[in-house]
Amino acid sequence: MPKISTKALNMPSSPIRKLVPFAETAKIKGKNVIHLNIGQPDIETPESALNAVKTADINVLEYSHSAGFESYRKGLANYYAENDINISKDEIIVTTGGSEALLFGFSVGLNPGDEVIIPEPFYANYNGFATAAGINIVPVTSSIEDGFALPSIEEFRKKITEKTKAILICNPGNPTGNLYTTDELNKLGALVKEKDLFLFADEVYREFCYDGAKPFSVINLKGLENNTVLIDSVSKRYSMCGARIGALISKNKEFMAAAMKFAQARLSPPTYAQIAAEGALKTPQSYFEKVTDEYVQRRNLMVDGLNKIKGVKCPKPKGAFYAVAELPVEDTEHFCQWLLEDFEYEGNTVMMAPVGGFYATPGLGKKEVRIAYVLEKSELKKALICLEHALNEYPNTTI
Amino acid sequence: MPKISTKALNMPSSPIRKLVPFAETAKIKGKNVIHLNIGQPDIETPESALNAVKTADINVLEYSHSAGFESYRKGLANYYAENDINISKDEIIVTTGGSEALLFGFSVGLNPGDEVIIPEPFYANYNGFATAAGINIVPVTSSIEDGFALPSIEEFRKKITEKTKAILICNPGNPTGNLYTTDELNKLGALVKEKDLFLFADEVYREFCYDGAKPFSVINLKGLENNTVLIDSVSKRYSMCGARIGALISKNKEFMAAAMKFAQARLSPPTYAQIAAEGALKTPQSYFEKVTDEYVQRRNLMVDGLNKIKGVKCPKPKGAFYAVAELPVEDTEHFCQWLLEDFEYEGNTVMMAPVGGFYATPGLGKKEVRIAYVLEKSELKKALICLEHALNEYPNTTI
Repeated sequence: MPKISTKALNMPSSPIRKLVPFAETAKIKGKNVIHLNIGQPDIETPESALNAVKTADINVLEYSHSAGFESYRKGLANYYAENDINISKDEIIVTTGGSEALLFGFSVGLNPGDEVIIPEPFYANYNGFATAAGINIVPVTSSIEDGFALPSIEEFRKKITEKTKAILICNPGNPTGNLYTTDELNKLGALVKEKDLFLFADEVYREFCYDGAKPFSVINLKGLENNTVLIDSVSKRYSMCGARIGALISKNKEFMAAAMKFAQARLSPPTYAQIAAEGALKTPQSYFEKVTDEYVQRRNLMVDGLNKIKGVKCPKPKGAFYAVAELPVEDTEHFCQWLLEDFEYEGNTVMMAPVGGFYATPGLGKKEVRIAYVLEKSELKKALICLEHALNEYPNTTI
Repeated sequence: MPKISTKALNMPSSPIRKLVPFAETAKIKGKNVIHLNIGQPDIETPESALNAVKTADINVLEYSHSAGFESYRKGLANYYAENDINISKDEIIVTTGGSEALLFGFSVGLNPGDEVIIPEPFYANYNGFATAAGINIVPVTSSIEDGFALPSIEEFRKKITEKTKAILICNPGNPTGNLYTTDELNKLGALVKEKDLFLFADEVYREFCYDGAKPFSVINLKGLENNTVLIDSVSKRYSMCGARIGALISKNKEFMAAAMKFAQARLSPPTYAQIAAEGALKTPQSYFEKVTDEYVQRRNLMVDGLNKIKGVKCPKPKGAFYAVAELPVEDTEHFCQWLLEDFEYEGNTVMMAPVGGFYATPGLGKKEVRIAYVLEKSELKKALICLEHALNEYPNTTI
């Protein structure tokens, strides 16, 4: 039997997946599992996206341009202009999800063996794309104590080696819900410029900023036009995760020309999904206002509720739809499994993502869970009640 | 300005792309360019595929399972059973086009620096996926003299080194239109078994076999269950290239478990496209009979017409919808460019793909072109007239 590659052997599983079999068993046993573990919102996809597909007049479902439909890229450029991000259609490659944009970005910016610095905890699938591209992730640790603010520039500086080619940030952040300030980004930009690195920014949660906060795109960092690369996606913006449409964006012409060769090899991004994404551009502002309002309510309910539970600490997120909470337990991986296997309250239990797997440094985040507040408030209330009872019952609670 | 990776610098462009700017200029000058250069058929996508999307009842466009919808995988397993290929739904990962299946296959089966042997000429984008995965392609040369039959097993054997981990075939073949015999495949299978290699087979043209020929899938090679990996796609089968739905298939459990980690990292294949592909499974047999009949007519018209032109040699393809022809010129790259830049007949010219770029060995195939007979017969007739006049006019014709 032929051996699979060591690359494949080293390919990490998502830390969220580990609990899936326990959730399935819990459901078979009749428990209602409240899913706070994944970022699949229940928000409806805008009608303009769904209708664009329903009414598309297609006889032959053809390839699109490898960079995506020109009409969609023009529409995207307008969308960015409305968000104070100055990008032309030729600085955009439409990708199959933000996932493909990340993979292209890693492959174009870094050689196998090179290093990318990422503040931890970070979106765990970055590990998979790094392994696929053969590059190494070097973490800089952020802390729940200051709401996962950007680590100091000195911390970044300490991690820079000859192999460092890029820094990657996620802003607003998954799993932290943190939003970096313009000041933090300017300081990071200065370091990127000084060391001549690429700065990748995953800004897929741009629309989800709360309490009047405004997101600041790395594209607007002055003098960094050749360094900054924007990773984007329509998945969260329009609650259309299944479309698989993202974008790789940069003003660095050499970078984009090389990325285009990767795009051409895979021929084109999916046609139906592009039609949906182009339709979604017509989504009225009222949709976003309603969605933001709903998420603010969910966040307040969830985070305030968490902080009222004895021993729980949860900084209030400024963006995205995740919160990281510290629980009064030694090991949230064990606790989350116990919730599914050995606990229920009024027929309910809760599934959350242990945050240990979102850190690259072993042993960190063991008391933390990520909570995606993507469900209706009534469900979130049930989850809070469940969690409070669970922490009382859990044999290994530390308070 | 930060440097892009050497991997990106080495990423090949598709050989078909080189001529695109010349085609665009020709169109601006008012010429009608007959496109025989790309495999984008004009055949209509089955109604059942298009209707499935039109009538899909979606409120939230969610992620699917990372391996693809279970219902679609069950349907696919039935489709394979009808084609005498015994596969279960759990031996299938639905991918974003055959492209992603190839990239996953290369990444799981080979480490960077490992070698895959491929009969040349071969589908040029294999080069791109090999570069992306960091692996090396070792060609075994097939010849127009015997219609691009499988090279002898001795030729394969000569190319095997310690780095060889896999053999990749395309059957029916792009660009050659050749269909390997069961005998050829059994012999290749024996070598694969002896050397404990993976055998990847790109069988995306399965439905396009002519003159009563039957395709033989590598999945049916006995005793090779842990070696064979099938790369498939709905792009050509249902003329839905823009869907971007393919499949990675193997009975090797370890291989598939590893591939699943790559699939999970990118979350899911596109949802709308899966709905279309699942709908396409209901395509009546009459559709395929009509399409095959049409392609046979197109092939006969084109290949017989080519062989009637003085100095042109074109073996009759048994499958797919490509033919490779040898022309009485020294360099088809120059000739194809000249056709676009300096030639027209009654307002028409022809765009073909020089085959040099489909060989890995430098200098081979310089007299050959690939012709995709994917247009209506009236267009193919015009193309033949054009080509005959062009070869008379071309200053560098060798006869």
